[in-house]
Amino acid sequence: MPTQSNKRYLEDLNEGDHFVSASHTLDEEQIIHYAKQFDPQIFHTDPVLAKQTFFEGLAASGWHTAAVTMRLLVDSLPIAGGLVGAGCEIHWPQATRATDVLRVESEIISITPSKTKKDRGVVLLESLTKNQAGQIVQRMMAKVVVQRKNIEL
Amino acid sequence: MPTQSNKRYLEDLNEGDHFVSASHTLDEEQIIHYAKQFDPQIFHTDPVLAKQTFFEGLAASGWHTAAVTMRLLVDSLPIAGGLVGAGCEIHWPQATRATDVLRVESEIISITPSKTKKDRGVVLLESLTKNQAGQIVQRMMAKVVVQRKNIEL
Repeated sequence: MPTQSNKRYLEDLNEGDHFVSASHTLDEEQIIHYAKQFDPQIFHTDPVLAKQTFFEGLAASGWHTAAVTMRLLVDSLPIAGGLVGAGCEIHWPQATRATDVLRVESEIISITPSKTKKDRGVVLLESLTKNQAGQIVQRMMAKVVVQRKNIEL
Repeated sequence: MPTQSNKRYLEDLNEGDHFVSASHTLDEEQIIHYAKQFDPQIFHTDPVLAKQTFFEGLAASGWHTAAVTMRLLVDSLPIAGGLVGAGCEIHWPQATRATDVLRVESEIISITPSKTKKDRGVVLLESLTKNQAGQIVQRMMAKVVVQRKNIEL
């Protein structure tokens, strides 16, 4: 996890900056536990019945993939003030499976200082969540609010 | 929760169809429990330290708001074959707080039968997650994959 001392403000970031997270190993228990609470559908909760569904086997809820992605980002992106998202576009091009080991690769696409709030800006961050085979299970483009430093208002 | 008998296929849906979920009451314990696992930042985990942050008090992780929204949708949208999302745009215009009671109002924006896969189509669904004051804490536009019935291939 980044320490406070190396945290970056808006001025410390550059387009093209690249970040790679640690990895997280999924399993059936995690997928089913999450889904029973937040997305109780048989393709997320029952490995046997899931075979007869759209997913042809147990798949993680997309929201579980997003949650694991967020955890990996929090631990790997050294943003001052924390990771605060205003919103995002998110796609799940293929299912996340119980055998997957997930890792997140992120890149800063653009940096836009706010015109109305001089203490912050918005960073457009693309985060690809990949499994151990390098296949993309989630593609996210997020608007992240980042603090500026040394502001003279 | 909808029973299988009243589940709807693509042909049973219409633009403008409107769905209102049940409500879910949040509290500090749920917010902190979720955040410790998936989004461990002090504005989501520590009610005291959170006062000094961007959020000026404890706020739910946006991914927690999304997860509660999904649970409410699963229990209120009678879609045959289940709720399967290909992706979405999501915004959090204001923070979700520990005192919030959330409810989801959804509307079908468009229905597009697949040109290549005759057994399905994509429904564009707008879901607004509102607190007890009617304020929108999450706005989501999701692409939902819905089965057709009585297909002759």
